Amino acid sequence: MAASFVRNGRKIVAIGRNYADHVKELKNTIPKEPFFFLKPTTSYLPSGGNVEIPRGIVAHYEVELGLVIGKGGRDISSSDADSHIAGYALAVDMTARNLQDEVKKKGLPWSAVKGFDTFTPIGSFIPKSQVADPHNLSLWLKINGQLKQNGNTADMIFRIPRLIEHVSSIMTLEEGDLILTGTPSGIGPINAGDEILCGLADAATQQELSKLEFG
Amino acid sequence: MAASFVRNGRKIVAIGRNYADHVKELKNTIPKEPFFFLKPTTSYLPSGGNVEIPRGIVAHYEVELGLVIGKGGRDISSSDADSHIAGYALAVDMTARNLQDEVKKKGLPWSAVKGFDTFTPIGSFIPKSQVADPHNLSLWLKINGQLKQNGNTADMIFRIPRLIEHVSSIMTLEEGDLILTGTPSGIGPINAGDEILCGLADAATQQELSKLEFG
Ligand SMILES: [Mg+2]
Ligand SMILES: [Mg+2]
Ligand SMILES: [Mg+2]
Repeated sequence: MAASFVRNGRKIVAIGRNYADHVKELKNTIPKEPFFFLKPTTSYLPSGGNVEIPRGIVAHYEVELGLVIGKGGRDISSSDADSHIAGYALAVDMTARNLQDEVKKKGLPWSAVKGFDTFTPIGSFIPKSQVADPHNLSLWLKINGQLKQNGNTADMIFRIPRLIEHVSSIMTLEEGDLILTGTPSGIGPINAGDEILCGLADAATQQELSKLEFG
Repeated sequence: MAASFVRNGRKIVAIGRNYADHVKELKNTIPKEPFFFLKPTTSYLPSGGNVEIPRGIVAHYEVELGLVIGKGGRDISSSDADSHIAGYALAVDMTARNLQDEVKKKGLPWSAVKGFDTFTPIGSFIPKSQVADPHNLSLWLKINGQLKQNGNTADMIFRIPRLIEHVSSIMTLEEGDLILTGTPSGIGPINAGDEILCGLADAATQQELSKLEFG
């Protein structure tokens, strides 16, 4: 079932502020522990689709590595976390940035600003066996051929086992859940008509693991 | 499938600040339009279970009417909203109030403070045919026999069709989704060992529609 997580999964848990350069560009402070928000699975957009930008919304891209949960569980220890991962997926955490600025000021939830239909472009399932080291992957995003984001998962503030430990200490993880692990710097808006292309590769061998495109 | 929404549903959309008396007791301002947050379906606790209060957490009850979606859709108009409802359920939106006060100050998401396992006690599915008027239901909550909340759905600031219109303008609703419609005044903490009993009844006839209990 994990391979069909886009169709059958029940939740998307997205980590915020997990790359120091991105924390700086949004003038936020480095978190002392991981934090996260939920996105609805109705926000998935398979590669090749179009992000719908609601009227009046400034829609920012955030390219991220996704963890697809295989074996569910709660209170998963970081030492046991890897055994709960079935695979990976390249994803974009689209964000209504102008609305997010407003709700942050008012202390309101992030669910709407992160949860519009089509706001989670998602690549194909990558079986775990194809990934030598999830903490040494390059992930990048281009708009109309121009490189905007180019990060390495080695730069995560909180690494994958810690993320799984933290999330599962609050809510049970189930098979098919997706955890988004945060975005490196370079985020910005997309506009109608833009062509967005993202890639994920093994940073040691340059072997491509996934591509994801949308308009 | 709607009748088995607790097992098979994919999201819980919870409306905030939808009863004026509750808005006042938390010293919040009356919203100009509905707002909501997501709770994970892993937070469901069937009647008869025990809410787990994490160490250091002040866990508040909020008794609420839940709408169970039958026919999915997006951009549902308020005039069409009723046809998307399969039934109702009595629910409690448990909230880690001390953590919520912190995240509101910091402009952080609400997902964790609302999303702990067991933080959505939920009653049985009530088929729509049993409910004469969803805007004239009394809902109450007692702790150890003492009445704490006693509201009427007639007092919602935003009524059910408007809630469905608003949520579905942002995210597609699917069969088995639950919409929590907000809580009347009287919220407060529960403590280990408390016995909580909630009820839902037709306010015109006093006919009982649901009971929900947890410890
Ligand atoms: Mg993100
Ligand atoms: Mg927390
Ligand atoms: Mg509530």
